[in-house]
Amino acid sequence: MSDFNQPLSGNEMPRFGGIASMFRLPVQTTADGLDIALVGVPLDSGTSNRNGSRYGPREIRCESVLVRPYGMATRAAPFDSFQIADTGDVALNTYNLEKSIGIIEEHFDRLLSTGAKTVAMGGDHTITLPILRAQARRFGQMALVHVDAHADINDEMFGEKITHGTIFRRAIEEGLINPEKMYQIGLRSTGYAAEDFDWATDRGVEITMAEQCWYQSLAPLMDDIREKIGPDRPVYLSFDIDGLDPSVAPGTGTPEPAGLTTSQGIEVIRGLYGLNVVGCDLVEVSPPYDPSGNTALLAANLIFEMLCSMPGCVRRS
Amino acid sequence: MSDFNQPLSGNEMPRFGGIASMFRLPVQTTADGLDIALVGVPLDSGTSNRNGSRYGPREIRCESVLVRPYGMATRAAPFDSFQIADTGDVALNTYNLEKSIGIIEEHFDRLLSTGAKTVAMGGDHTITLPILRAQARRFGQMALVHVDAHADINDEMFGEKITHGTIFRRAIEEGLINPEKMYQIGLRSTGYAAEDFDWATDRGVEITMAEQCWYQSLAPLMDDIREKIGPDRPVYLSFDIDGLDPSVAPGTGTPEPAGLTTSQGIEVIRGLYGLNVVGCDLVEVSPPYDPSGNTALLAANLIFEMLCSMPGCVRRS
Amino acid sequence: MSDFNQPLSGNEMPRFGGIASMFRLPVQTTADGLDIALVGVPLDSGTSNRNGSRYGPREIRCESVLVRPYGMATRAAPFDSFQIADTGDVALNTYNLEKSIGIIEEHFDRLLSTGAKTVAMGGDHTITLPILRAQARRFGQMALVHVDAHADINDEMFGEKITHGTIFRRAIEEGLINPEKMYQIGLRSTGYAAEDFDWATDRGVEITMAEQCWYQSLAPLMDDIREKIGPDRPVYLSFDIDGLDPSVAPGTGTPEPAGLTTSQGIEVIRGLYGLNVVGCDLVEVSPPYDPSGNTALLAANLIFEMLCSMPGCVRRS
Amino acid sequence: MSDFNQPLSGNEMPRFGGIASMFRLPVQTTADGLDIALVGVPLDSGTSNRNGSRYGPREIRCESVLVRPYGMATRAAPFDSFQIADTGDVALNTYNLEKSIGIIEEHFDRLLSTGAKTVAMGGDHTITLPILRAQARRFGQMALVHVDAHADINDEMFGEKITHGTIFRRAIEEGLINPEKMYQIGLRSTGYAAEDFDWATDRGVEITMAEQCWYQSLAPLMDDIREKIGPDRPVYLSFDIDGLDPSVAPGTGTPEPAGLTTSQGIEVIRGLYGLNVVGCDLVEVSPPYDPSGNTALLAANLIFEMLCSMPGCVRRS
Amino acid sequence: MSDFNQPLSGNEMPRFGGIASMFRLPVQTTADGLDIALVGVPLDSGTSNRNGSRYGPREIRCESVLVRPYGMATRAAPFDSFQIADTGDVALNTYNLEKSIGIIEEHFDRLLSTGAKTVAMGGDHTITLPILRAQARRFGQMALVHVDAHADINDEMFGEKITHGTIFRRAIEEGLINPEKMYQIGLRSTGYAAEDFDWATDRGVEITMAEQCWYQSLAPLMDDIREKIGPDRPVYLSFDIDGLDPSVAPGTGTPEPAGLTTSQGIEVIRGLYGLNVVGCDLVEVSPPYDPSGNTALLAANLIFEMLCSMPGCVRRS
Amino acid sequence: MSDFNQPLSGNEMPRFGGIASMFRLPVQTTADGLDIALVGVPLDSGTSNRNGSRYGPREIRCESVLVRPYGMATRAAPFDSFQIADTGDVALNTYNLEKSIGIIEEHFDRLLSTGAKTVAMGGDHTITLPILRAQARRFGQMALVHVDAHADINDEMFGEKITHGTIFRRAIEEGLINPEKMYQIGLRSTGYAAEDFDWATDRGVEITMAEQCWYQSLAPLMDDIREKIGPDRPVYLSFDIDGLDPSVAPGTGTPEPAGLTTSQGIEVIRGLYGLNVVGCDLVEVSPPYDPSGNTALLAANLIFEMLCSMPGCVRRS
Repeated sequence: MSDFNQPLSGNEMPRFGGIASMFRLPVQTTADGLDIALVGVPLDSGTSNRNGSRYGPREIRCESVLVRPYGMATRAAPFDSFQIADTGDVALNTYNLEKSIGIIEEHFDRLLSTGAKTVAMGGDHTITLPILRAQARRFGQMALVHVDAHADINDEMFGEKITHGTIFRRAIEEGLINPEKMYQIGLRSTGYAAEDFDWATDRGVEITMAEQCWYQSLAPLMDDIREKIGPDRPVYLSFDIDGLDPSVAPGTGTPEPAGLTTSQGIEVIRGLYGLNVVGCDLVEVSPPYDPSGNTALLAANLIFEMLCSMPGCVRRS
Repeated sequence: MSDFNQPLSGNEMPRFGGIASMFRLPVQTTADGLDIALVGVPLDSGTSNRNGSRYGPREIRCESVLVRPYGMATRAAPFDSFQIADTGDVALNTYNLEKSIGIIEEHFDRLLSTGAKTVAMGGDHTITLPILRAQARRFGQMALVHVDAHADINDEMFGEKITHGTIFRRAIEEGLINPEKMYQIGLRSTGYAAEDFDWATDRGVEITMAEQCWYQSLAPLMDDIREKIGPDRPVYLSFDIDGLDPSVAPGTGTPEPAGLTTSQGIEVIRGLYGLNVVGCDLVEVSPPYDPSGNTALLAANLIFEMLCSMPGCVRRS
Repeated sequence: MSDFNQPLSGNEMPRFGGIASMFRLPVQTTADGLDIALVGVPLDSGTSNRNGSRYGPREIRCESVLVRPYGMATRAAPFDSFQIADTGDVALNTYNLEKSIGIIEEHFDRLLSTGAKTVAMGGDHTITLPILRAQARRFGQMALVHVDAHADINDEMFGEKITHGTIFRRAIEEGLINPEKMYQIGLRSTGYAAEDFDWATDRGVEITMAEQCWYQSLAPLMDDIREKIGPDRPVYLSFDIDGLDPSVAPGTGTPEPAGLTTSQGIEVIRGLYGLNVVGCDLVEVSPPYDPSGNTALLAANLIFEMLCSMPGCVRRS
Repeated sequence: MSDFNQPLSGNEMPRFGGIASMFRLPVQTTADGLDIALVGVPLDSGTSNRNGSRYGPREIRCESVLVRPYGMATRAAPFDSFQIADTGDVALNTYNLEKSIGIIEEHFDRLLSTGAKTVAMGGDHTITLPILRAQARRFGQMALVHVDAHADINDEMFGEKITHGTIFRRAIEEGLINPEKMYQIGLRSTGYAAEDFDWATDRGVEITMAEQCWYQSLAPLMDDIREKIGPDRPVYLSFDIDGLDPSVAPGTGTPEPAGLTTSQGIEVIRGLYGLNVVGCDLVEVSPPYDPSGNTALLAANLIFEMLCSMPGCVRRS
Repeated sequence: MSDFNQPLSGNEMPRFGGIASMFRLPVQTTADGLDIALVGVPLDSGTSNRNGSRYGPREIRCESVLVRPYGMATRAAPFDSFQIADTGDVALNTYNLEKSIGIIEEHFDRLLSTGAKTVAMGGDHTITLPILRAQARRFGQMALVHVDAHADINDEMFGEKITHGTIFRRAIEEGLINPEKMYQIGLRSTGYAAEDFDWATDRGVEITMAEQCWYQSLAPLMDDIREKIGPDRPVYLSFDIDGLDPSVAPGTGTPEPAGLTTSQGIEVIRGLYGLNVVGCDLVEVSPPYDPSGNTALLAANLIFEMLCSMPGCVRRS
Repeated sequence: MSDFNQPLSGNEMPRFGGIASMFRLPVQTTADGLDIALVGVPLDSGTSNRNGSRYGPREIRCESVLVRPYGMATRAAPFDSFQIADTGDVALNTYNLEKSIGIIEEHFDRLLSTGAKTVAMGGDHTITLPILRAQARRFGQMALVHVDAHADINDEMFGEKITHGTIFRRAIEEGLINPEKMYQIGLRSTGYAAEDFDWATDRGVEITMAEQCWYQSLAPLMDDIREKIGPDRPVYLSFDIDGLDPSVAPGTGTPEPAGLTTSQGIEVIRGLYGLNVVGCDLVEVSPPYDPSGNTALLAANLIFEMLCSMPGCVRRS
């Protein structure tokens, strides 16, 4: 049907059988020849509370076997549109967060140098900083759509400048992200100080609190964001699974009550279709806190939706 | 109060005590004298992904002890309206799916021959095909209301014609169901091919995708379905627990994100009241993936709602 | 910043470190000097179904370490507004429910005698009766806002007058609560008899069934309740975690499907701000049924919201 | 084959199917016509630490479906030797421990009055006191073999005379048990005071600490006990599952490390064969702490071994 | 160091990173060039009780990442001795047990035809019959060492001739195994009939009951078995994880109390060194009942021990 | 009875109630006035496989509430012998392993400077290096008794010199430990290289493999070790919970099959009585992998045994 890599079908091998690669796609160690490189970043040493997201990529792969190749509501056909493969994981140094930042950065430089785009699976949110550095080197300053329970704009945590709670402050300071084209969705709950969000909003970041999302579709919000960003500007999507409610995503490290519904999360990703999305990540899935595997399964579906929103993904008539 | 079987009260025996029959009702091995026969079908050899629904009937019985006899919002009183008993399980052959189909079919022929209606607990969705065959022999071609994440209308899976993903194609082909009076609610997520749903819609099946349900009551949809079916036509309800969101029903074999809420599931069942419902099933509860028991508890409540929607169920003034 | 007790910061001690007191506040055995006394009541011998809420206070404390001091949406700053401490648990007699009722009553008399208000963590709902007795002795007859799946107004259970399902009948009979200013929110599911709710509604209790809450904000309901109660009347909030849906609060003893969303639960608590709230409790968290800890984490956040709704809690500009 | 009740075979109904009665035997509400009455006592209000054993009888029944009718090593055939049935559970009052003691006592008086012997499933260890009272009324003062991590001979706990930790002191004081023919096996770990065991040993109780059992068969110990008791004296066996190591029996309320192995537990029961065993119980299985069900499965097997050690149980040649 | 495939080291990629192949070895779809082919057989439709072993191969691979290349006690170096790879899974038909038997048989014929030996991961024990057929075609009638709680020599189950409980009867009838050189170790618990084991022992099978193993090393038993088999006769090892005690291997479908210790299981495998082992399998790991993953981890270690006992495996000096 | 701090009794406060300090002892932030300081070190960034031991100290405290004050077999009375308190946790930097090493070192310097001895709860095994540095500064070069599945003497891991697998190499290199008085017990399973253990044994370290321990008491081994160390030499005990078998200690990060039994672990600790024990630690309890809490409960009991083996601990007559 297609010349591109196809997921191994459930009619060729039962879904519970075979090596668990992402979406049951072929595995290759470089991004050569790819339009989109799926890549795992099993880092969790930047985590302040429950850890375990080091097992995120493995578990997401295991649960991704249930994802089939076509989106039923969007009629999107990513595997007919792009050459996609599982490029394995970054070989980071779990004992040293600083060195790992460098390793991740170089790894993404290498992947991006082939012309492929990357869709990354964390690991904790710290991974997004080195990814953004590599992305910005390639695509320039980007717009950012950021789903999360937390703003991740602390100046430091425990005296450290790079942790899973400080990365977007760094990304703005380093000019990787244009704060006036940065959209945070799902923030909520409790904070360290009254001025927690002021630093960002003062720089133009637009925050949509979870409270503003309750009981309604986010399609209008995304229409608005799409218009504000415009079709050409490079956009990065960083999706922290804890932006969603703990009932749908229990397997994460810093869960906060009353988050987004799954449908809202999907609407955010689908709402990016038509933009110049240049990269995505899905972070903070922590399998030790996800015994059912359903958080990882959700993550796999969200990553599928990301593929469907990549520019050029065909929709079946 | 009533001459009918009554659930053993929590004031006679603590809820955690006593033999776990469905709704703590008496157990009998035939349907003799019953208006409604509750029956378990512990088959899971038709399952393509996670299995374990063989333990569904047992677990639903265990959790059903918390269900009390009166519906508080509907004011329905099923145990004052019908003679109901737990008729145990079908003694199927777990090693041979084809033989089990025959065993189930005969078992339901036998139950229905007494004049009782059946409310079945799965087991995987494969059980619905032999049940529909027996039902159609007794009631003729039926309308179908079908809650599910999946259409279950594949032509074959792994070369097999009867599995949990092909049954409604068979039911339509065999004339058990009138596709022009068939309503599928909650379908979503990913599919094998672009034309996955076309076969059904070409035959008149009406599909309401989960996306069409998000953020709203399904009462209007059910008003519409009720009108389309009309009060006399025999209707069968097949409720796959995976139609609901994995957050409310984690204990199932092929969970798909962003499904129906529990309230929507209840609205579908309540929306059948007034129709000529001739049988129901609740399938795909998989206890190994339901350590809290809450999926089974939900299933027990949904089965209670099915009893409340049976024609003739009185509502207290 | 403030002279009041402050939660130990995650920048002073990692969240996973240190003794787990409530909100990482100092522990003291009396209420001397406090505006608000946090207190655990680890009683679960009044439970009719699954027990285990005896571990509720301990688990809520353990999960409360993630709660930070400022409400991001409300901009409330409870720890800048009140002197709050963890006053430990009531030393109840787990073998004798009747004696425990007396012990709890005396313990709350003692706490309240210092002028502090109490926010209690259960334990099963039985604890609310002795608390209300002590509260009424101090504040007179109160209005009640009651979130729950169950009305808890049975006359007796298994012949006993005091259990977790009879307490509000006792509270009304004893005049602790004014039934004409009593608001029950989230009731649903199945009941023992047709007249289950009549006793209460006959006395003026206003019931908002879960069905009336589905798909919408409860802010309007709370506006109405706030107006009906008025700013001066003493109000008690009793929040049974099973008022919320089992998907968000699986760790409880008598879960009922299709309950309130977390956001609705939060709206109820936030909706009390402006009233003369004189005490609160959060009950029925059962850790053995909450392996992820997320029910306890939710409970900790709801208790934080209770602090934010106490009269006098400042909001940051 | 036999005229006695036979367990429903796995070749008639799959093991995962059918109503879960004990050993898949018929259920009857009295002991009429029985040699041995299996009976559940779902009481856990006498528990000092983790509770949940109220679900013990139900879970043991559910897991007992795997037990087949013949002992392979002993060649014992209990269902060819005795008329045995599941007589359901005692309808105790979960809110009032004292009343429950009376209810249990009367229930066992009634069962024993038919001439049947009883094998009881707890529930916490408190149930053994009322059972012993009924047993002593029928059989006179008994010898006791007691497997446990704890001596359960405290004078009182929290001021109460009857709890799961005081029952054998009461049983000796009341003359139900002859302390000079009382054998406690598996005691270990930590105690309240230096003299914890002295009260018992001063009265002639023989204690075999777990330390004396490590790394060796208990068959010699049982030979000795058998000789000391003699073939005619009525003997009661009380088996607290926490006598075994937490690795084999995690699902219990007060686990203590370094307990007996399963094989040692079995040797104790098998070692009773040849004695005049007049009753048995298996207590303290707590399903909320037994998610795998393997503690309940072990309990079901131990109860099967009890049946095999009852006087008159034939061994196949 | 070695020209053979080496496991990816934990110093090249963290153990939690990378694609989870067996022992982190390269994956290839045929056995070409291999001395030993690791292969998964994710079949569980032959299971009579708890199922889920369809996920056995995947989970064993996931946990095998912790296994390092050298045996510390044996000083065995399998990856310096053999060319070994992960050859993926058999694409069986999960809906049809009979067809799957044929598919497995052909798959092993194909693997063995390259000259490789196979080490298989189940899946339920039914897989051993088609494997033995392929093995016997290549190696002739074999001796068998069989670790299990069950003899698996029923004539039929539920009328079926091929299930996980009948395979060794079939294997003897078909002449695949020489019953006079067949050694069953660990049998125990309860059986269907008095004569359950007679069929086998009448044909010369040597059974070592679990009772004969308690509290002691199995090294002497293995010395004896090794002598009886002799160094040249082809030997197959079939290791059902339920031969071990449920405390060490909870994740299995028909657990039986009082089984072998892990050390005894290892001694059996190590005791085969010096024999002409021509194939092995490890079956009945059921991940849904193994939430900790430790049963799968144990299985991975046992499979490593199997590699170490293969003829020709060098031991470091 | 005693002037020393006493654990809060279960007769004063139910075991499930109250703030969870270690052994329910008073909490103080310094070691002033103490004979023994209990201290938590919630570090897990040195972990190579599963992490989560950051929650070790909290969970061990929670489960320690069941430990009573007297050892029944040893008749040891540590709380009558020493002034002991819970001194809370080290405030380490979870993002930076190197800084944390320094913080731990200083913290122990401070504790030891008061004259107290320390008993530490991990955290991963990396914590033992900074503790040993502080201990050696105070007590000089020490003998070491080390229970573990792993030797932890790698030169580096992933290029890092300090991780949970390299610490004893560093401790020997730095002269903290005398390798000729170093005893490793329980090592087993698989290693990185043939010479893994040679570095240590070449320096005089005495290794007792798990294989040498199977099926027997370790009391003779400890008699030998006690004699070799002699009564005066300062001895440190480092107890990695993974030295024990995964069946008794599933909640750990790098479990290895066929480890020591609990009784053997206890014998090692009891076997130190009579030596000049100057400090102890218990490491690698990982609560996310210990849902039952029984690994933490075991750890609490082992720490109690450590207190009982401290020089000067009285034994009741």
